[in-house]
Amino acid sequence: MPTTSALQLTAAGVVRTRVRRRELRPDDVAVAVAFCGVCGTDLHARDAVRAGGEPVVPGHEATGSVVAVGEAVTSLAVGDAVAVGNVVDSCGTCPMCRAGQENFCERFPTLTYGGVDPVDGSTTQGLWSGAVVVRETFVHRLPAGLDPAAAAPLLCAGVTVWEPLRALGVGPGTELAVSGVGGLGHLAVRLGVALGARVTVLTRTPAKTADALALGAHAVVVTSDEAAVAAVRGRFDVVLDTTPRAPDLASLLRVVALDGTLCVLGALERVEVDVLDLLVGRKRLTSGGSGGLRSTRELLAFCAQHGVAAQVQVLPAGRADEALERLERGDVRHRLVLDTRELA
Amino acid sequence: MPTTSALQLTAAGVVRTRVRRRELRPDDVAVAVAFCGVCGTDLHARDAVRAGGEPVVPGHEATGSVVAVGEAVTSLAVGDAVAVGNVVDSCGTCPMCRAGQENFCERFPTLTYGGVDPVDGSTTQGLWSGAVVVRETFVHRLPAGLDPAAAAPLLCAGVTVWEPLRALGVGPGTELAVSGVGGLGHLAVRLGVALGARVTVLTRTPAKTADALALGAHAVVVTSDEAAVAAVRGRFDVVLDTTPRAPDLASLLRVVALDGTLCVLGALERVEVDVLDLLVGRKRLTSGGSGGLRSTRELLAFCAQHGVAAQVQVLPAGRADEALERLERGDVRHRLVLDTRELA
Repeated sequence: MPTTSALQLTAAGVVRTRVRRRELRPDDVAVAVAFCGVCGTDLHARDAVRAGGEPVVPGHEATGSVVAVGEAVTSLAVGDAVAVGNVVDSCGTCPMCRAGQENFCERFPTLTYGGVDPVDGSTTQGLWSGAVVVRETFVHRLPAGLDPAAAAPLLCAGVTVWEPLRALGVGPGTELAVSGVGGLGHLAVRLGVALGARVTVLTRTPAKTADALALGAHAVVVTSDEAAVAAVRGRFDVVLDTTPRAPDLASLLRVVALDGTLCVLGALERVEVDVLDLLVGRKRLTSGGSGGLRSTRELLAFCAQHGVAAQVQVLPAGRADEALERLERGDVRHRLVLDTRELA
Repeated sequence: MPTTSALQLTAAGVVRTRVRRRELRPDDVAVAVAFCGVCGTDLHARDAVRAGGEPVVPGHEATGSVVAVGEAVTSLAVGDAVAVGNVVDSCGTCPMCRAGQENFCERFPTLTYGGVDPVDGSTTQGLWSGAVVVRETFVHRLPAGLDPAAAAPLLCAGVTVWEPLRALGVGPGTELAVSGVGGLGHLAVRLGVALGARVTVLTRTPAKTADALALGAHAVVVTSDEAAVAAVRGRFDVVLDTTPRAPDLASLLRVVALDGTLCVLGALERVEVDVLDLLVGRKRLTSGGSGGLRSTRELLAFCAQHGVAAQVQVLPAGRADEALERLERGDVRHRLVLDTRELA
């Protein structure tokens, strides 16, 4: 493995290429990637490349198996089923890393693609690839019983909703609303239900009602139905906004309960909020993104135990361009995953 | 009591006048006002009158004594020491009222001044006045041991900081920061200390350091001292921003800890926040304002038990104009209170 086949975002679209993977350091694990999800971040990366950025191999939620280990690796062995998420290194010493939140590393985590390797300074290349080399610490053992294709999106979409669900104490008795039932939202519904919450989906699209109920939601509110929205005013302890568009904070805050929380996950931009919309009811606005090693492992164990995984549509690696286009126009139920085994 | 002496905000300044108080309804209590605080809201009301609004009697944090009771009143008797805050009625049936948060009443609470009495539709007139008539439910018994002048600001400034302190679980082990040590801030420091938190004051003004420590703060960070601010990055579980100016949210969020909360209390306006500043560390932005009946009573009992009250400077009622001017230029240590007994 000095090089491996990979799918690279270029100005002309996705092209198959070969990328260099480093020689194993003592604490490195080489992973043959089998499945990798298609995430909104990959769309942003495509747009950045189109706008003149350097070509890059995307992909940061994958499962696969160990094909080689460095001499100091103790926790994994060749053949183990594993998973890799959107962070492949961090300083390990800052307060966030010490708290198990490597995703918030104060020296900035090394992202799985487009990041800077702290040892050799190279730019990291992602998991739309036949293989990858990652520090042992950042490779997760995939628990038995999880389907590797359906588990891949847990590594980014899944942990992105899992961390706020856990931080906000979602469980039995919680009234949880999930706005949007795409890649993030459908996992929020399934995880919220498995945690014991009462889950309501908020959607603009009446046609998604049956789908949301099939995912396990207890109720659906179509947000164009003013009476239905009025009926849930002040209802929800936690509202997760998973839509990729700029949120209508005033409307979403209106359905948050006293001392409840609106967590904006999909739209990472500057937003305007009227402090009075927070004041009345002491409502809280927060966000979150991806996850630390500890919560990722907790999520994988929880999913194996509760039979939760993503609802995926698997496409061959050769259809990556189509996958990005479908994600862009919202034609996904609910997460696309590329079969990367042919890139090995 | 059809009329009583009062201080009215007019375009020409504060003038002494007489206002009508209603005949006692069965559940009404007539209160002789002894002391009433000077609040930022009164400044806003002055500005509204100057801009052409109707003259109004301000004042919504007062102590005094019962001088008459309606025939159905059971909890209070003539001579009882009492207190009145910024809400004098609410619907009593909406979810917020049922939760003890009359200040967030969904049909809008009847504010102590400038509100609309739900029975006769008259505009309420505030507590810079010799006497007032209020529904029994909204009159608080003043616990023994509380100085009536120093207790008056508890009814608005005090409960405004008390509700978020309690809702956010501030207590032993909490790292609490209080930005600003004015009317709200100095009470947040004293209450935070009494609740067992470690309290740090954030101030722009080095000269306020000794004062903050005298209030009981354990530490002071002067926000122009970049090294001092950097040293508390990610430190505080709760940051209360009590300054009246538009907050620098990015700077304040930087000192909030993982899963911690920034509560903006002083500046009630539209603010812009970068979702990424909330995402990294899953930080929460919230607000609050005044308090419900339940928490007001809890606060009064807590203050009597712990010997906490406002640090006040008492001025005669005739110096109300001066009081507003001093509040406007920040020349207050830490809350001005008018002695309204001469208005009786």
